[in-house]
Amino acid sequence: MNILLTNDDGIYAPGLRALRAELLKLGAVTVVAPATEQSATGHSVTLLNPLLVSEVYEPDGTTFIGWAVEGRPADCVKLALLELLPQPPDVVISGMNAGSNAGINVLYSGTVAAAIEAAFYRRTAIAVSLEYDKKIYDFVTAARYAREVIEQILAQKPEEGSLFNVNIPVLEHGPIRGVKVMPQNVAVYFEQFHRRVNPRGRTYFWASPEFLCKDPHPDTDVTALAESYITVTPLKFDLTDRAALAAMKGWQWKLGANPPG
Amino acid sequence: MNILLTNDDGIYAPGLRALRAELLKLGAVTVVAPATEQSATGHSVTLLNPLLVSEVYEPDGTTFIGWAVEGRPADCVKLALLELLPQPPDVVISGMNAGSNAGINVLYSGTVAAAIEAAFYRRTAIAVSLEYDKKIYDFVTAARYAREVIEQILAQKPEEGSLFNVNIPVLEHGPIRGVKVMPQNVAVYFEQFHRRVNPRGRTYFWASPEFLCKDPHPDTDVTALAESYITVTPLKFDLTDRAALAAMKGWQWKLGANPPG
Repeated sequence: MNILLTNDDGIYAPGLRALRAELLKLGAVTVVAPATEQSATGHSVTLLNPLLVSEVYEPDGTTFIGWAVEGRPADCVKLALLELLPQPPDVVISGMNAGSNAGINVLYSGTVAAAIEAAFYRRTAIAVSLEYDKKIYDFVTAARYAREVIEQILAQKPEEGSLFNVNIPVLEHGPIRGVKVMPQNVAVYFEQFHRRVNPRGRTYFWASPEFLCKDPHPDTDVTALAESYITVTPLKFDLTDRAALAAMKGWQWKLGANPPG
Repeated sequence: MNILLTNDDGIYAPGLRALRAELLKLGAVTVVAPATEQSATGHSVTLLNPLLVSEVYEPDGTTFIGWAVEGRPADCVKLALLELLPQPPDVVISGMNAGSNAGINVLYSGTVAAAIEAAFYRRTAIAVSLEYDKKIYDFVTAARYAREVIEQILAQKPEEGSLFNVNIPVLEHGPIRGVKVMPQNVAVYFEQFHRRVNPRGRTYFWASPEFLCKDPHPDTDVTALAESYITVTPLKFDLTDRAALAAMKGWQWKLGANPPG
């Protein structure tokens, strides 16, 4: 099996290294990942600037890992599929991210965006993220769980272009209780800004680190993750609201033939 | 009616100016938009850096327009709703973007991301974009059409948090044939990179300006837009694939109690 591995924390991030070690048990792994951290860059792509690439090796200097790209996670997937890989990968894995990507964070996440980009190209794609509490991450243990879940997803032979979002709960809160297939929570997060004035008298705002979903909808990725379940959410990138679409089919529209100024 | 206007082309972009002039016919308009162009930044948000803001006035120096934010489109919406506006707006409009945001471009678009961010906060939100052919934009005419469509959407009293993606076709290709409510096209775009070597011998890739959906699915936003229809697509930000979710509920999962090393 040929595996493309990417992430949004950068090619040298420990979460990627731990996940790569586990994925090597499943097949050949090529990494194409951002040269620098690209957290919360969503589905940004680089249209106007050149994307420099570098070959990256293990510290021994001989074992080829893949390519570092001076770009966004989605750029990495495009370059991998269109330019860098000799053949299309059987699966694209993105992660393991430092911090969960559940609820509406799915939309902000570069990790998930990379997986979505792969699904555009009809590759099976799996995003993997690890929730934390006190910024302590045991990526090695989490990667073992992730590999087990990835193996079981692939054993189901999902159709091409299938897209999954996997979150591993905080490991320090006790044993993992199992795996739950859950929908994405859509409740808004509580967040706030610090308002300050810079030395030149200009106002600026700085996002508070508190970013909490105080009132998650029950039976979603956010609630199951908090209850120490690994969550798996199948995603799609057709954002069409089908119910609204059906309701709107009856709407009558009028346009001014010569719109007044 | 209180209207928040944002975009991803920057607060001084002509598309925003033209749309603002039309929206002033519908109510009070406050602009909170990026200080600089933020095209294709998707749903990026700024977590680590401060967001400087500046008050922006009409060239007469007295008419207040709103705030320029040194950040992403989604940052602008957050700051507007949480910090800058004295009261929640009745509707959030994002645009008018230079270039359509149809098909999978919806995912890359900062314009649409700003509208999605507003929908997170249960605001009714409408993204508006203008397709082009030869990089000539008549934003003034397009903004009249956009205002007509926005008025008719709001006249239907959509429930709070409703999200719409409006695209105006190329105006130079002939008269607009009407308005069509259409789903998002999900076919991949043709794109390629130029491979080059920089003066220091490093390989880089540069995205080609060709970005075409060669084989769009019929009866989608992409096909209707090409046929000179204004398209309206209701969107949602719950990416859960409900059909896959139902199918996966029967999957059995096993985790190693003590995952092997």
